[in-house]
Amino acid sequence: MIERLCIIGVGLIGGSLARALREAGACQEVVGAGRNTGNLQTAVGLGVIDRYDTDLAQAVSGADMVVVCVPLGAMEGVFSAIKGQLAEHVVLTDVGSAKGSVIEAAQRVFGSVPEFFVPGHPIAGTEQSGVEASFSGLYKDRRVILTPLPETDAHATDRVRDLWEAAGARVTDMDPIHHDAILAATSHLPHVLAYALVDSLSRLDDSDELFEYAAGGFRDFTRIASSDPVMWRDICLGNGDAIQLMIEHFIRDLQGLNHAVQDRDGQQLLKIFTSAKAARDRFMEKQ
Amino acid sequence: MIERLCIIGVGLIGGSLARALREAGACQEVVGAGRNTGNLQTAVGLGVIDRYDTDLAQAVSGADMVVVCVPLGAMEGVFSAIKGQLAEHVVLTDVGSAKGSVIEAAQRVFGSVPEFFVPGHPIAGTEQSGVEASFSGLYKDRRVILTPLPETDAHATDRVRDLWEAAGARVTDMDPIHHDAILAATSHLPHVLAYALVDSLSRLDDSDELFEYAAGGFRDFTRIASSDPVMWRDICLGNGDAIQLMIEHFIRDLQGLNHAVQDRDGQQLLKIFTSAKAARDRFMEKQ
Repeated sequence: MIERLCIIGVGLIGGSLARALREAGACQEVVGAGRNTGNLQTAVGLGVIDRYDTDLAQAVSGADMVVVCVPLGAMEGVFSAIKGQLAEHVVLTDVGSAKGSVIEAAQRVFGSVPEFFVPGHPIAGTEQSGVEASFSGLYKDRRVILTPLPETDAHATDRVRDLWEAAGARVTDMDPIHHDAILAATSHLPHVLAYALVDSLSRLDDSDELFEYAAGGFRDFTRIASSDPVMWRDICLGNGDAIQLMIEHFIRDLQGLNHAVQDRDGQQLLKIFTSAKAARDRFMEKQ
Repeated sequence: MIERLCIIGVGLIGGSLARALREAGACQEVVGAGRNTGNLQTAVGLGVIDRYDTDLAQAVSGADMVVVCVPLGAMEGVFSAIKGQLAEHVVLTDVGSAKGSVIEAAQRVFGSVPEFFVPGHPIAGTEQSGVEASFSGLYKDRRVILTPLPETDAHATDRVRDLWEAAGARVTDMDPIHHDAILAATSHLPHVLAYALVDSLSRLDDSDELFEYAAGGFRDFTRIASSDPVMWRDICLGNGDAIQLMIEHFIRDLQGLNHAVQDRDGQQLLKIFTSAKAARDRFMEKQ
């Protein structure tokens, strides 16, 4: 049982976690923190949090669990604001989509990574953002990856695992570098491609007409291009090395496919498409 | 009113058209044609067609409307099989996703493009295929593009427009080259990217683990990679020039984005993502 949960950044991710934990009866009090008073008032009105404080040092005071749910670029500022203000028995975790950069930020602020800090990442979300879009079922049967370091207190890791399991998620531990490579492939690259495609088409001369004739395939393919641009800028900055490698890998493969188009090599095209369909169908079977 | 409608290729596209026209009371008899007897029997069992013939010359006999719904690569063979077998008052149309290559195939078979042939393309479909996946609402409020040539009989074009409007679609006329450029951008390129991404990831060492941590964004982004590989091979062969240009255009833009990742240029990344999100949100408002 969490006595006082502090959620820093009450949007889709933080709000949905608070809702899930309240619904599961896993916490007694939820304190919201952030810069936007209007948003925090909305969160109170929606019953997502009990109260809020825009002063982070005040907000974390006495909390036994602090979850930082801000874009990657804002993590370091949050760590600086709460340093020295945390309760003695606190457990601190975050939800950043890249782990290496959050760990480095914690190192810079605290001198070394505190033993009470458990880096984490729930693999869930929608292209929506904001507390209004939050719902208690967001983490149901979703994966959460924790990337504790050798210096992390095992008891703290257990408490963060319990928290996500109470929200309905399946929790795995992983090395942070491995996490960042995997997410670059399955999440960061597809988002970059969706943004790049829509941007590329929107800058063509006849883009208005183009979009008029786009259909369901285009709609689904580009759904993730409606995601929050600030969040994705921060992910590209925070996991830049792994993302760059994946983009280069993808461009090489796409150039190979383009050669097959150029050479009208039906056999090679059929081979690529058949193998991709098989892999995609296997992926769907596991969902 | 169509007296005898002949659908050559009774799959998702042809089957859904037959269902829609029957439901609208727009045709008296539907004859299915194709090579796969089992599939045609299923179509009769589902009430999609009244009867079938695996001999195309027999199937088109006496039909006043013939719709060719086969993959692009099979068009020329169908034209050869029905040449000289069509009724005097026939109107012939097709549903191919690229128009230039179908027109060239008609030219090769008939000597010149027959005045009774109206090239067409319904912009609708799902990643499913086969008559079992067909449904009468597939074309409801969807776009259909017709690309009649100067030699096309205006009365034939009117009849094909009526047919698609009876199925619930919105019909536009367009130059075939323009059609092929637009579809290369909004449909063919996204399909190629989705296939390329899944294929590229599936050939990484840790691909099984990768797919385990893929989430909803990946699922939607790659839905179209579950499309029929033969159909998409034929589209890449049939609209190769336009697709190649679009892939090259996209690779240039993706390389630009990758430079921004490499330089950790947050301002440029935010600019690209914000403009893409705005374009995608505008597209969704029009849906």
